[in-house]
Amino acid sequence: MLETVIPFIIECEKLKSVLRRTKVVGTDRRENSAEHSWSLALLAIGLFPHMPASLDQLRVLKMVILHDIVEIDAGDTFCYAARLDKAECEQAAADRIFALLSPELGMEFMAIWHEFEAGETPEAAFANALDRMLPLIQNLNNNGQSWREHGVTWKQVMERNVVIAKSSPALWQEVEAMLHAAAGKGILPHGGAF
Amino acid sequence: MLETVIPFIIECEKLKSVLRRTKVVGTDRRENSAEHSWSLALLAIGLFPHMPASLDQLRVLKMVILHDIVEIDAGDTFCYAARLDKAECEQAAADRIFALLSPELGMEFMAIWHEFEAGETPEAAFANALDRMLPLIQNLNNNGQSWREHGVTWKQVMERNVVIAKSSPALWQEVEAMLHAAAGKGILPHGGAF
Repeated sequence: MLETVIPFIIECEKLKSVLRRTKVVGTDRRENSAEHSWSLALLAIGLFPHMPASLDQLRVLKMVILHDIVEIDAGDTFCYAARLDKAECEQAAADRIFALLSPELGMEFMAIWHEFEAGETPEAAFANALDRMLPLIQNLNNNGQSWREHGVTWKQVMERNVVIAKSSPALWQEVEAMLHAAAGKGILPHGGAF
Repeated sequence: MLETVIPFIIECEKLKSVLRRTKVVGTDRRENSAEHSWSLALLAIGLFPHMPASLDQLRVLKMVILHDIVEIDAGDTFCYAARLDKAECEQAAADRIFALLSPELGMEFMAIWHEFEAGETPEAAFANALDRMLPLIQNLNNNGQSWREHGVTWKQVMERNVVIAKSSPALWQEVEAMLHAAAGKGILPHGGAF
């Protein structure tokens, strides 16, 4: 049973060398996509009690654990400077990496990743909301580090994160209030009205 | 709903600075306990299809995501040189860190962590087996890096990892064969008969 899992696990070690723009809070080190995925899983289980009982929590966790694996080949795409060939890059990466597993498991992981990318099911909408919220939480507690370093404005952050409302209007309301407060404190520069 | 979760998430950023003895495969960088926890979750979902249907997979994932958080205060204890005060250190850490959450969620996380530590339920036995297997898999694919650096012998590895059998005899059989092969190749120095 370890025959196909081990090559996959070893291949996925590479995600620990894919760096994100966000720095680990309180340090000057850019976080990697593996530790980011762990934070996402932690945020998920921290918010599960507030989510509808119908949410498939196991599927959410599988989704956030797997969601960035394609970056091993495709690299971390900084969300405000997306490349045009992102989708093709990532699909080719998924094809290659999930093929390391047994066909059944490879298909399961591919389906979970596609579901995350589509963002339509309640599980995928929630996983996507978490993926937006986490760097936002980190930035708000890191004096707006990646926003400042990349000249991101309040308007851009608001536009990007309003999709949180798709998963949970109540969650978006809290996030919106935090972003307003951040703008008031000057952490997030205004770049136009929203 | 974010009020208590955010301080907890920010506190847990510190796990990304707790270094383990094992290096990220293919690099010279010691991995941190956050990215280790992600690998563990990945290994879990890779092995779920081989586990009994009665296994509570969601609980296993929560367990592996949370299992090392106490290291934020207690540090990573190298498994072959355990300190005497490990249990007390870790309990104090859990008391402090889980208290950042709402009482209900803090109690849930504490119970999950205690269950992992006790290792008695099928979920905890499996999570512990994963936690033993992962550095072993990394070492076998990294020319025995942390074993060599810390003078760990084949006998020690066998003794420590035989508990994998508690979760799954079939899994232990595969691991045992890999360890024998590693000893044969000289990756793992013999330190006595087993």
